[in-house]
Amino acid sequence: MTMSRENRTKERLVVVGGDAAGMSAASQARRLKGPDALEIIAFERGHFSSYSACGIPYWVGGEVDERDKLIARSPEEHRERGIDLRMRTEVTELDVDGGRVRSRDLDSGAETWTSYDKLVIATGARPVRPPLPGIDAPGVHGVQTLDDGQALIDTLSRTEGRRAVVIGAGYIGVEMAEALINRGYEVTVVNRGKEPMATLDPDMGRLVHEAMEGMGITMVNDAEVTKILTGDDGRVRAVATEDGEYAADVVVLGIGVRPETTLAEAAGLPLGDHKGLLTDLAMRVRGHESIWAGGDCVEVLDLVSGSERHIALGTHANKHGQVIGSNVGGGYATFPGVVGTAVSKVCDLEIARTGLREKDAHRAGLRFEAVTIESTNSAGYYPKADLMTVKMLAELRTGRLLGVQIVGREGAAKRVDIAAVALTAGMTVEQMTALDLGYAPPFSPVWDPILVAARKAVTAVRRTTQ
Amino acid sequence: MTMSRENRTKERLVVVGGDAAGMSAASQARRLKGPDALEIIAFERGHFSSYSACGIPYWVGGEVDERDKLIARSPEEHRERGIDLRMRTEVTELDVDGGRVRSRDLDSGAETWTSYDKLVIATGARPVRPPLPGIDAPGVHGVQTLDDGQALIDTLSRTEGRRAVVIGAGYIGVEMAEALINRGYEVTVVNRGKEPMATLDPDMGRLVHEAMEGMGITMVNDAEVTKILTGDDGRVRAVATEDGEYAADVVVLGIGVRPETTLAEAAGLPLGDHKGLLTDLAMRVRGHESIWAGGDCVEVLDLVSGSERHIALGTHANKHGQVIGSNVGGGYATFPGVVGTAVSKVCDLEIARTGLREKDAHRAGLRFEAVTIESTNSAGYYPKADLMTVKMLAELRTGRLLGVQIVGREGAAKRVDIAAVALTAGMTVEQMTALDLGYAPPFSPVWDPILVAARKAVTAVRRTTQ
Repeated sequence: MTMSRENRTKERLVVVGGDAAGMSAASQARRLKGPDALEIIAFERGHFSSYSACGIPYWVGGEVDERDKLIARSPEEHRERGIDLRMRTEVTELDVDGGRVRSRDLDSGAETWTSYDKLVIATGARPVRPPLPGIDAPGVHGVQTLDDGQALIDTLSRTEGRRAVVIGAGYIGVEMAEALINRGYEVTVVNRGKEPMATLDPDMGRLVHEAMEGMGITMVNDAEVTKILTGDDGRVRAVATEDGEYAADVVVLGIGVRPETTLAEAAGLPLGDHKGLLTDLAMRVRGHESIWAGGDCVEVLDLVSGSERHIALGTHANKHGQVIGSNVGGGYATFPGVVGTAVSKVCDLEIARTGLREKDAHRAGLRFEAVTIESTNSAGYYPKADLMTVKMLAELRTGRLLGVQIVGREGAAKRVDIAAVALTAGMTVEQMTALDLGYAPPFSPVWDPILVAARKAVTAVRRTTQ
Repeated sequence: MTMSRENRTKERLVVVGGDAAGMSAASQARRLKGPDALEIIAFERGHFSSYSACGIPYWVGGEVDERDKLIARSPEEHRERGIDLRMRTEVTELDVDGGRVRSRDLDSGAETWTSYDKLVIATGARPVRPPLPGIDAPGVHGVQTLDDGQALIDTLSRTEGRRAVVIGAGYIGVEMAEALINRGYEVTVVNRGKEPMATLDPDMGRLVHEAMEGMGITMVNDAEVTKILTGDDGRVRAVATEDGEYAADVVVLGIGVRPETTLAEAAGLPLGDHKGLLTDLAMRVRGHESIWAGGDCVEVLDLVSGSERHIALGTHANKHGQVIGSNVGGGYATFPGVVGTAVSKVCDLEIARTGLREKDAHRAGLRFEAVTIESTNSAGYYPKADLMTVKMLAELRTGRLLGVQIVGREGAAKRVDIAAVALTAGMTVEQMTALDLGYAPPFSPVWDPILVAARKAVTAVRRTTQ
């Protein structure tokens, strides 16, 4: 059945993708415009809406005891709010000129054209799945969706062996290493990079490497996986690299994600260098009056380097949805960009970054000084005082803060927010040395580690500039 | 013996006060100028130099096991660095016109005049000690200096009873309540204000009140102490208010401090409304070319209200010392002011504030909206998720952030740094809603509590402004 624009008396918003960005946009638009003024139809190909993919490692690891706790709002709850959310319905084509989308009911196979006045694209990201021999063998798992998480948990409960190999040592990789440790597995992480956490500079990644080994995780760096070996039963039995084989009863892929923009590309919408959709500051797809896009399928402006990046992160997706919903609903909001903040942990090791790494700064044409300091998360004499390493980059001549990386224990990760706000405000490291940060012995040395790093950065920039 | 300026071949710096501000200034000046170029003489009337007064509650509570851990640098260490630090020597007069100070050796009683080219006043603060009957009785203790801390610890180990009364419910009061709980005391806190933590608005202080009661601490608010009652042995036995008596085997005074500016006032140096010394941005005493002052004896510019405040806090004292030492040593640095950040805890309850309370904002002539939200310190589904209450004030029309108060559990207090940086940068709450703060389920909900508060503040300001 085709519904044409002419048959409708009220405006229609169509949302493609029923997770964070799409459903935040739909919900915010609904807050601003009631069902009499705006019809909202949303399509989601999966079984779940509005869930926390970031929570999957903690569900797999057993810290979150049931799947439904990761679901912020069910399809029924969205429908009660006047959003016509159609689950297990995949959009297969965007007809931008015709102002309509084609969808297929994944259960019945029926196809439908649905016209729109306004369109929101929130198709998310897809996990990188290299075309390795054996990658589709039973026992090899991605962890992108709730369905993936459930499949992995099912495998783990059926598997007798206790050896797990995680491929990739980014956020997903290290969080899954923790999850598998928590489930009693012997964990090996096979990593293409020189050190884990390529989102940090290698000197800081080295600290993560050492800490993970201290937790009993076997780290194999600088290693390219060549194939996944299977046993007589067809199940995974090992992961092979050029240098060796690593026995595995289960394999988890944590290699990262790419924007899911197949439909958008086919429709001729503008994509950036990372294959993410390009939008303006109001999250409208560039050059298209009536189409918005947000979440893991778009590129975002990096405010520090001035270039576009792809960052798949729930907090951005929610902000995008909020901005899109406001604009679609007749209000006004913008998403000014990101500074690249990310926090993570492996067991009790906290890892954080914001702004530019050394290679990002080089690539952006910036000259800078990088300093690294060791301090503690509380006053040195306080019993829980744990070491924290802070690396800080500052631009030559201007002294502008360019980035911060932190590796430490309790209280390390969220300290990066100080730098995230300072980056947003364009502060210099000299200005940062005077920041009035919270001080009491249980929470900080008298000079917070961020201030210690800023003072050292001031000296480094001054010396180089003279 | 009097040494006159003429007899000397090199510049002389005299520092009055051997704690954080004074000795930081001396150390930084020494880094910039060697002993051949600058002579440094410092006077300290106590037994200890460069110690953490903020650490005393944790030493009393037993978390820090020995006094010397609170000493950052001993007199001998300062002397090794070429600073002539004279302990147990009290400066009794500042002769500003004559460029000299008079001091008395507290052991021998000998008096000396010492001339200076440059003078640093770092006389600190003195605890408020109301002239109550019985206040000098054995068993009544202040906790301002290491000597005070030692005396209290001695009393606690000698005292058989287990009832302690803390007078005052500010930072020192609540931290001492925790220390005494940790030592197994039944603790009653008698507080003049309607709620504890007068550095918060009363609605937020109420949360602290309830939490402290939940810890088994008896809170007596709105109560003025009228006298301290003693037993036949002359020792304290109870604290009396207009409404009742509270039995006490030991009493701790945590009523706050005032700038110690008796000498400065006698010398005609400029004092502000809070009786603290007034300085310029380089920490030079206003109107005096060769005199600097820093630490607990000065007033500081509040960047949010534009007026002067007195804040006794080690982190400011250290920054002041650093700035003074740079300027005295021939470099250049300024202390631009504070935004009023403070963090504290009582057992596992974390308390934080920055910027203006409602009454500060009224006093500054500002019109504002105040909003309060409840959120969690980690994703709601994460097992350690604890409630956190955030109050935020934003100016009408401009939407500028004016202040934030937080009460919660782990991870609550240091979140205030986000607001401290935003205040320093003059951000609006609308700008704050786009902040790229660290997100991962163990560290934050997908919308950080600060972002949730900022979004609510945006709505409140917008509604009022229309």
